[in-house]
Amino acid sequence: MNDFRILPVLKILSFILFVLSVITFTVPLVYSVYMEDEEILCYILPIFISLFLYSVFIPVKSVRLSEKEALFIAVSIWFIFPLFTTLSYELSGYIHDPIDSYFESVSGFTTTGASVLTDIEKLPKSLLLLRNITNWIGGIGFVVLAVSFLSTRMPIGKAIVKFESSKIIEERIEPRVKEIAKIVISVYLILTVTEIVLLLVSGTDLYNAVTFTFSTVATGGFAPYNASASALNSFFGEMVITLFMFLGAVNLQLYYIAFKSRSIKKFFLDQEVLVYAGIILFSSLLTIFLLYETNTYSSLTESFRYGIFQIVSAATTTGFSTADYSNWHPAILSIIMITALIGAVGGSTGGGIKIFRLIFIFKIVSGELKRIAHPKIVYRPYLKGKKLDPSTVNSFWAFLSLYLFSLLFFGFMLTLGGHDLITSFSASVACITSLGPGLGDVGPASNFSQFSDFEKLMLSFEMIFGRLEIIPVISLLFIRNL
Amino acid sequence: MNDFRILPVLKILSFILFVLSVITFTVPLVYSVYMEDEEILCYILPIFISLFLYSVFIPVKSVRLSEKEALFIAVSIWFIFPLFTTLSYELSGYIHDPIDSYFESVSGFTTTGASVLTDIEKLPKSLLLLRNITNWIGGIGFVVLAVSFLSTRMPIGKAIVKFESSKIIEERIEPRVKEIAKIVISVYLILTVTEIVLLLVSGTDLYNAVTFTFSTVATGGFAPYNASASALNSFFGEMVITLFMFLGAVNLQLYYIAFKSRSIKKFFLDQEVLVYAGIILFSSLLTIFLLYETNTYSSLTESFRYGIFQIVSAATTTGFSTADYSNWHPAILSIIMITALIGAVGGSTGGGIKIFRLIFIFKIVSGELKRIAHPKIVYRPYLKGKKLDPSTVNSFWAFLSLYLFSLLFFGFMLTLGGHDLITSFSASVACITSLGPGLGDVGPASNFSQFSDFEKLMLSFEMIFGRLEIIPVISLLFIRNL
Ligand SMILES: [K+]
Ligand SMILES: [K+]
Repeated sequence: MNDFRILPVLKILSFILFVLSVITFTVPLVYSVYMEDEEILCYILPIFISLFLYSVFIPVKSVRLSEKEALFIAVSIWFIFPLFTTLSYELSGYIHDPIDSYFESVSGFTTTGASVLTDIEKLPKSLLLLRNITNWIGGIGFVVLAVSFLSTRMPIGKAIVKFESSKIIEERIEPRVKEIAKIVISVYLILTVTEIVLLLVSGTDLYNAVTFTFSTVATGGFAPYNASASALNSFFGEMVITLFMFLGAVNLQLYYIAFKSRSIKKFFLDQEVLVYAGIILFSSLLTIFLLYETNTYSSLTESFRYGIFQIVSAATTTGFSTADYSNWHPAILSIIMITALIGAVGGSTGGGIKIFRLIFIFKIVSGELKRIAHPKIVYRPYLKGKKLDPSTVNSFWAFLSLYLFSLLFFGFMLTLGGHDLITSFSASVACITSLGPGLGDVGPASNFSQFSDFEKLMLSFEMIFGRLEIIPVISLLFIRNL
Repeated sequence: MNDFRILPVLKILSFILFVLSVITFTVPLVYSVYMEDEEILCYILPIFISLFLYSVFIPVKSVRLSEKEALFIAVSIWFIFPLFTTLSYELSGYIHDPIDSYFESVSGFTTTGASVLTDIEKLPKSLLLLRNITNWIGGIGFVVLAVSFLSTRMPIGKAIVKFESSKIIEERIEPRVKEIAKIVISVYLILTVTEIVLLLVSGTDLYNAVTFTFSTVATGGFAPYNASASALNSFFGEMVITLFMFLGAVNLQLYYIAFKSRSIKKFFLDQEVLVYAGIILFSSLLTIFLLYETNTYSSLTESFRYGIFQIVSAATTTGFSTADYSNWHPAILSIIMITALIGAVGGSTGGGIKIFRLIFIFKIVSGELKRIAHPKIVYRPYLKGKKLDPSTVNSFWAFLSLYLFSLLFFGFMLTLGGHDLITSFSASVACITSLGPGLGDVGPASNFSQFSDFEKLMLSFEMIFGRLEIIPVISLLFIRNL
């Protein structure tokens, strides 16, 4: 086994931190200068600190990273980079507790969108812009990580993956990971620009269009207003956001495949997308029916408007809201929590267990039922046309077991702090799936400020743990001689 | 494939129904005659009806049953026999709605112990005796079914099992199923007699000793009083019940093994029992601490008394209560629900997912973690010293997936009826695990009378579905040409 070469690792880590700092802080910096809002230091200092750190390690000789070292960097970046935005929040003076700032930062980069802020609009606009950029960076960061580290075809043992040799899921094109990264980043940029344009068309100003777009395509859910997306006060704007929450929650490579083959069918006939669209359609229709039937809204139009937005927001794990659903019919609350738990399509910015895993479970179960009907058939599960070997299947179940166990564990830890069951377990679902808001005291009209510092740190960990889909974080703890 | 021979199946089915009727109704009949309580017809008529049914089929030629036919009988008996006690309840005039009577009957035989009665003590004592006998019959009935049909070593395809050839889990003795059935029935009778004697020693009368014992060793949880087990008003009595809830929730074959090898160690060093005892010990200690710390009870003695009883009652899926835990610390409510969900030891009268499955999940997960640490190791899961082939592993996960899916599905269906989340999902847990009481509106001080007829039928189905551990019921639906 290789030794862990600490200096080369720190060199690359500090380089990535520097690049991320420049991307993250430049826009709010420019905006701050333009607005003359006196927050300039909040954005300059992190860039300088990251530059300083990097410069310290420049003399270190570059090496080709081992798998373990790459994994260490890929995981630790999610814990370390939020410290830079924590610094911004603290320097601004608008968030007082460093743990609050760290929670808000982690919540941003993991695209969770859970907030400890009781009055969002008190913050200067440049800081809110930064806050939504954390969503945007986190969204694409996860997709790039997923296509390189978390490919579904790999057993966990190999999930500590060769950056250079992994293949993508789709058989039709098999470029190398760097090319895939380019593709998904391009798609992401196109989605971003398109949504900004459409929101401008809807009549909102550039600031709103940009900030909302950042947290929409990332399925992040941060909004620069206490009233979340209802602050836009625009039916057309809400429909644009609904559409792009869905588009962001779909495998970003599919757009490229559909574009390259000049066939929109390729996009809509993808099994995961089909199942996902089916779940959202069914959930939305049932919700709209229940809203209308229980007279929550008196008109079918309003039931449609608020029903579809809340369901798509939950099923994509975005977490925007245009209504306080806390008092809606309990079946709708179940739908919100269950669709978030199921989550989005693999290779998207969305979170949750993911649709391809749901399909996998369905195949295992239906395979068993087939075997009961025809006892002589030897059944082996497959996914996307590939048979799965038993060790991959084990990895799969290990992931699911750990996911559900973590969900119960963190929920239980919150009940230990005296929070009621609905609040505790919905907060745990909201953090592990990167949904954001939950039910009860962490409902859409509330926030996470009620939790203790220990609980906020624990939930920060849960957000990263869930976002990285558990295994890489655990691997880091279990690999020998790291 | 064999055809399904309807007449021979009905002959055996009616014979079993007759035997069950005699066992079930004789004791309340004798008691009713002795008490002269005018309920005699309620107990005579079911016996006569079952005798009549059997006599109709006596001329049918006996045959050796195929696996499918045996499975059909084993499953359908759980749906059909409750109709006989439904008749008793209806004849008595104390339960008015036949669906209420059916729910109460299914709840009895599945050892769930959920009740639709708002005032239990209004019922005549002979009828309450019958009600607790349904628990007692159901408890041993399930164990006999489990050792013959649900052996953990069989993949689901073979779970449609040969009555004559299946082996038991323990390697040390491998008698045939009939012998095992004799063993577990003997153990059950000894446990029953011992508890009755100990409860008499505790100072209660014979009626209470017998009724409480019936629902204790079966981990059923029916009590002939509105106040459940606290009606005994005896610390010693509660401790006896606590002990026998635990003893009933442990693999009944272990007693025989320990007895035969003259070694109590064999009992306590069984891996499942160890893990189970550990879970109960940890949960009880935490509960006692929380009760004392939050001042729910002012003395440590009371915290111990009420804490340990409620936790053992939940973890064994018995569902007795000596306190209304609805307002206890939320972490205790989590513990109650989670320990019930985990459930009891395999081969016991208890329900839930079962400890051996928890151990299995733990082994899969730890195997994966080992593989991360040592990527070259080929890991294959095993249980009780036997390696599991991939198809058995698939069956296992299919069961767990279906279990959790059913839990969510039935809970969701209850929310559709407008019941709140806590009530709906705890009721679903309480029915699928055969715990009985839940939280919220189905808490220990409440009952299931609030549900609609449709919901009661649905929950009756869920109780049987959970009790038979899903697969046999599903098999019946999926086997071709049945
Ligand atoms: K989110
Ligand atoms: K029970």
